[in-house]
Amino acid sequence: MAGNDDDLKLLGAWPSPYVMRPRIALNIKSLGYDFLEEQFGTKSELLLKSNPIYKKIPVLIHDGNPISESLIIVQYIDENWTSSGPSILPSHPYDRAIARFWANYIDDKWFPSLRGIAAAQGEDAKKAATETVIEGLVLLEDVFKNCSKGKKFFGGDKIGYLDIALGCFLGWLRVTEKLNSVNLLDESKTPGLYKWAEDFCADSAVKDVMPETDKLAQAAKVILAKIRAQAS
Amino acid sequence: MAGNDDDLKLLGAWPSPYVMRPRIALNIKSLGYDFLEEQFGTKSELLLKSNPIYKKIPVLIHDGNPISESLIIVQYIDENWTSSGPSILPSHPYDRAIARFWANYIDDKWFPSLRGIAAAQGEDAKKAATETVIEGLVLLEDVFKNCSKGKKFFGGDKIGYLDIALGCFLGWLRVTEKLNSVNLLDESKTPGLYKWAEDFCADSAVKDVMPETDKLAQAAKVILAKIRAQAS
Repeated sequence: MAGNDDDLKLLGAWPSPYVMRPRIALNIKSLGYDFLEEQFGTKSELLLKSNPIYKKIPVLIHDGNPISESLIIVQYIDENWTSSGPSILPSHPYDRAIARFWANYIDDKWFPSLRGIAAAQGEDAKKAATETVIEGLVLLEDVFKNCSKGKKFFGGDKIGYLDIALGCFLGWLRVTEKLNSVNLLDESKTPGLYKWAEDFCADSAVKDVMPETDKLAQAAKVILAKIRAQAS
Repeated sequence: MAGNDDDLKLLGAWPSPYVMRPRIALNIKSLGYDFLEEQFGTKSELLLKSNPIYKKIPVLIHDGNPISESLIIVQYIDENWTSSGPSILPSHPYDRAIARFWANYIDDKWFPSLRGIAAAQGEDAKKAATETVIEGLVLLEDVFKNCSKGKKFFGGDKIGYLDIALGCFLGWLRVTEKLNSVNLLDESKTPGLYKWAEDFCADSAVKDVMPETDKLAQAAKVILAKIRAQAS
């Protein structure tokens, strides 16, 4: 049961970084929800009906009305429950525009570069892919300094939109580090983000939905094996 | 001069559909701005400084602060000048989420399919690409019916976010029809959108920034020739 007046269902899967985004947003707003887990490789009737265009998780269903795409869902949660808990998007329109810009950058540029490490063939390619990810983090270190203004999070004292957009990938970042024996989030190169990652994962809205690295690494191996079996 | 208290500069180019989006939004809010035209194939120092990540137009510079990405700029204009003219995004959070979803669909799926017609090699490929574009329009016809609820625009009585997101491509849709001798926006297949396109182009916020089809077709030929010369 949702535990509030609203009927909230979230279609998702625990290893998905995109699913973590609405889960953190719902936690920030103290909104209970039914978490309906999709199984890897299959799609439920409810998912196909709720997101017929992309057939992808996450989908939030609020009183029967489906909303798709993780960042759109996070904005919906923030805009629909303005008085339940702190704001997720910054209050000033310019800060909101900047947060939206970098959230898109993370999805369109940075996370694909992280996936590029696993896809790289050979040591030289892996090294180049690793450098690209680190360059992105160095760029985001600057963004963090500008947005946080000396506070703990991109959003200031509390987790906000950009914290959620980047933070949801921390589990996969650690798995990539572990499975490829590389160091990506380095305390000497990106000290601000290094500390931010610790604070983010320890936050009460995050800690119960952030997967353990070992468990996620195990899931990653299973998912990769299934993808390779389907491709062969 | 901007003609208002704010210093507004828009870096753009008249044939760009993405640049048309903030221009329409600024017109809706009755905000004057300096239109600084970038030349095709070159990038001004101001553009490189204002959007160092993507180096792309449009960029809106408000009192010295740059904002990039057309849909983010439109939301910024709506959120920063709430009392200047009608709202661009719908008022209800769910309607906003739906508008954002379909705006992303138009950019990620539908417009690339329109570009696919020009790129198609041979009659069969062109026919298949044309069918894909029309299927997208049939889908958007349904979205139009749901959003407009019998009124003229996706946004109801007035042009809104989704009108801007799709409408900015009408010039290029007509150029694609003309240069490839195909019929895409068909009164029999998509009667709602057919009428909507007429109303959209006749609107006072749009008519002065929507390029004439012949002029745009001429520009398209020049742009394509330059791209081919660079590629060869």
